Amino acid sequence: MARPAKKILNDPKNVVAEMIEGLVLANDGRVAKLPKHNALVRTDLPDSKVALLIGGGSGHEPLFHGFVGRNLGDGAACGQVFAAPSPDTIVEAAKAVHRGKGVLFLYGNYAGDNMNFDMAAEMLEEDEGITVRTVRVTDDVAAAPPERTHDRRGIAGDVYMIKITGGAASELDTLDEVERVARKAVANLRSMAVAVAAGSIPETGKLTFELADDEIEIGMGAHGEAGVYRQKLASADSVADQMMEQILADLPFRRGDEIALMINNLGATTMMEMLIVNRRIRQICDREGISVHRTDVGTWVTTQEMAGFSITLLKLDDELKHYLDLPAESVGYSRM
Amino acid sequence: MARPAKKILNDPKNVVAEMIEGLVLANDGRVAKLPKHNALVRTDLPDSKVALLIGGGSGHEPLFHGFVGRNLGDGAACGQVFAAPSPDTIVEAAKAVHRGKGVLFLYGNYAGDNMNFDMAAEMLEEDEGITVRTVRVTDDVAAAPPERTHDRRGIAGDVYMIKITGGAASELDTLDEVERVARKAVANLRSMAVAVAAGSIPETGKLTFELADDEIEIGMGAHGEAGVYRQKLASADSVADQMMEQILADLPFRRGDEIALMINNLGATTMMEMLIVNRRIRQICDREGISVHRTDVGTWVTTQEMAGFSITLLKLDDELKHYLDLPAESVGYSRM
Repeated sequence: MARPAKKILNDPKNVVAEMIEGLVLANDGRVAKLPKHNALVRTDLPDSKVALLIGGGSGHEPLFHGFVGRNLGDGAACGQVFAAPSPDTIVEAAKAVHRGKGVLFLYGNYAGDNMNFDMAAEMLEEDEGITVRTVRVTDDVAAAPPERTHDRRGIAGDVYMIKITGGAASELDTLDEVERVARKAVANLRSMAVAVAAGSIPETGKLTFELADDEIEIGMGAHGEAGVYRQKLASADSVADQMMEQILADLPFRRGDEIALMINNLGATTMMEMLIVNRRIRQICDREGISVHRTDVGTWVTTQEMAGFSITLLKLDDELKHYLDLPAESVGYSRM
Repeated sequence: MARPAKKILNDPKNVVAEMIEGLVLANDGRVAKLPKHNALVRTDLPDSKVALLIGGGSGHEPLFHGFVGRNLGDGAACGQVFAAPSPDTIVEAAKAVHRGKGVLFLYGNYAGDNMNFDMAAEMLEEDEGITVRTVRVTDDVAAAPPERTHDRRGIAGDVYMIKITGGAASELDTLDEVERVARKAVANLRSMAVAVAAGSIPETGKLTFELADDEIEIGMGAHGEAGVYRQKLASADSVADQMMEQILADLPFRRGDEIALMINNLGATTMMEMLIVNRRIRQICDREGISVHRTDVGTWVTTQEMAGFSITLLKLDDELKHYLDLPAESVGYSRM
């Protein structure tokens, strides 16, 4: 665990402000920042649509602020590193994306985000007369038992949720309908992560957790929240077996199910490792009679330079498949 | 430099074979592996087209084998980790992608790749009567002075080369024309990298180079090849200034030029760092009167879990812009 926090930064106090400035520029005009808030909004929003506002703490780039774009988020409210955006920022972002048909809040289920987004929703409804609905992403099976899914964290499943809800918010006419699609997607979504080495907090250089040189932790959360168990470093096949066993049993996924499969890099894991894990996951899916409609292997939800990855399964029907397969474009996630 | 090589693998001897199996599966049917070779071919190739074959050593994922897809490579010949593919594998891959109009070989300029691709080209011309042309990517300004661009390595510029040449090979009718576009692109392409910490070789766990805890090396190559200079860790602005100065002076880029800009993660660098660097690059471009047509910030050409990034500038004209902006889809790179 002796990896030093050796980063190419300017003043560590300014990382979020400078990062957001760089992010807006990377969008080449398609996204603008609100003047006094760390919030991003599409510049090409149609005059009338159901609005999708995403957001959360910074430090998980490209999530969330890299997912603002066509058929994805209409805007994002950004917090400091690993901290929820303030209610004010959320309110201003929601007002900026609102196009007369209400706003859906979509974010990971963490206490700070829940509190601030809920406060913002109240302010918007009472002060602005803007209707808000909320869907929280709760895909991490390691975070709580199946009877308490409402206590589960949102991890890499955020990506499929933004993709599907973003598509639905482009095509469907009412907030009710967009909320219905998002709720169906989150009910069909399961993930689990394995931590191999900690990342560090950019402002301080401090590691987010401690793990021995020969240890991994299965089920650990994105910020070092306790997992299911800690064990010695094991083979890719054995790690994939353990993670898939818990994911498949949870929904449960059944013979004949069709899924989307995501293997997400928590930061510093090589794509080679994830592709070797993908090989094993597909052997398991074959054995279980589960067919894979599409696969995403890449880096979308990180915890700085943390090593490890997560596996996400989303059970599909024709409607979810349609929204998942729409083209999309943003700094963090694009599809033809 | 005490970062341990702690990876989720099976038998380290099988990393490439298992990785390619996982990669083919991640393509969900759009790409197939040749039976006896580590080579990938699109399954949806049209009956008649100029063929684009890419390739090189493994360990740089998603490059190269993750760039086989529509408007990208038609096939890829894959070597072992950091080693060129064998002439046999290149020959079989070329025969598999050939559709009657010749094959363009596009790869990074390294001695081993040059030798094996050249041998394969000879075998194809003599034994199979297949016309082959070769374009080598030579974007690394740190590798040799401007009068010896033919001695420069190919680094992240490979991505823009595959994107543009893949588009040209989809739309243009002759090998001559596709080669012409590729040569124009490579002549307009400049990159430079900075190394922050080494990655490790998956088979052995050995680090690819040594760098002190407080040192970075500007201009270092993807495998630890010597850079321009080694220095103490510095601010993002200062590092970006130094890299941009050398890149801009090299072509040279001039007031009024329009460019595509890529910031590529060598493996373990956070997107936050790259976005903060992007902020500075855009300040420099503004000052120099250079306009940015599009920006790509992400992880495409890696050296395992190496920390560091590269900056790539491609000077555009209308033709290059057209091919660069075509939609594309692959495991490693997609655009709407």
